[in-house]
Amino acid sequence: MYAPPVQRLITELSKLPGVGGRTAQRLAFHLLRASDEDALGLAEAIREVKQRIGLCEVCFNLADGPICRICADERRDAGLICVVEEPSDVVSIERTHEFLGRYHVLGGALSPIDGVDPEDLKIAELYERVERDEVREVVIATNPTTTGEATALHIAEGLRARTSELSVTRLASGLPVGADLEYADELTLGRALAGRRAV
Amino acid sequence: MYAPPVQRLITELSKLPGVGGRTAQRLAFHLLRASDEDALGLAEAIREVKQRIGLCEVCFNLADGPICRICADERRDAGLICVVEEPSDVVSIERTHEFLGRYHVLGGALSPIDGVDPEDLKIAELYERVERDEVREVVIATNPTTTGEATALHIAEGLRARTSELSVTRLASGLPVGADLEYADELTLGRALAGRRAV
Repeated sequence: MYAPPVQRLITELSKLPGVGGRTAQRLAFHLLRASDEDALGLAEAIREVKQRIGLCEVCFNLADGPICRICADERRDAGLICVVEEPSDVVSIERTHEFLGRYHVLGGALSPIDGVDPEDLKIAELYERVERDEVREVVIATNPTTTGEATALHIAEGLRARTSELSVTRLASGLPVGADLEYADELTLGRALAGRRAV
Repeated sequence: MYAPPVQRLITELSKLPGVGGRTAQRLAFHLLRASDEDALGLAEAIREVKQRIGLCEVCFNLADGPICRICADERRDAGLICVVEEPSDVVSIERTHEFLGRYHVLGGALSPIDGVDPEDLKIAELYERVERDEVREVVIATNPTTTGEATALHIAEGLRARTSELSVTRLASGLPVGADLEYADELTLGRALAGRRAV
């Protein structure tokens, strides 16, 4: 039905989350109609992001160098670490302007059913970091979902077994159960941060 | 909040139709997480489509050469032309497998309010083509919207003023197959009544 380059573009667009066949077709025709500047601007932005963005060596957040902007910021409290599943969660928490510590991005949540075990996440790196940097408190901000809660529990137990001085906390309720951090509004997320409790 | 390459990708994604700020962010993080193969595959597909796909010299449908596949197909009836607004409409009609003629893609619909006048569409080219190729019938398949109807009327008048032998038709308006009378809007139902046919 389509010339091969058009079909290929539709196939590639269909791989995006939430984009079905019809939407992919609509986006493809939009890109065909769009100016070269706009369409190639998107292609170039994708290429650039894959070339220049990697993971921070300290916290595994997105970084355009060896270390991310937050870890490089001396004003951020190195004794307070917020543990999240994904880099997008860092953005959500930064938007509240209520957290002045640093982050640790796990890269997902424990889910034995999907084959995600502790060694697939940056959990060992968190333990090392906590001991090395004399961390006072770890705020576990994994999603309030089954896998996120399981991950929080696993990490809380692991941290307690290693260090006795450490305070381990979890985001307070205020987030509806089953929701996703990425979609929480700033106020709710800010409240949850302020009301964090010992696990 | 974001490293510049990430921000740029979000900005470029926001230009897509139906993609707001949150969706653009979600898509950007998906591309960051995706394999290089998938993400760069999309970038390359966009680049290739802009480089290799142009408009057919005859019918202004999308083409990966000077002439599109339909115009190049000798089995398609050159005496029967279906006039549509956009290349995506060609795909919709091809899916029915009921049309064996050729197409003419206007590149939009007349809309004085948006500054789209007859000379902005491929209307003069349609008139030339009809006279040159000894066309028997022109099926006007612009959208059943205000602008689509105005365009159909304009073209029908133009064609009649030029050629007397030509049959000019319009897609039937009526109830969509599988629809319910109870939920049909008055305008559609009125059209269906006016266009009733002997069983």
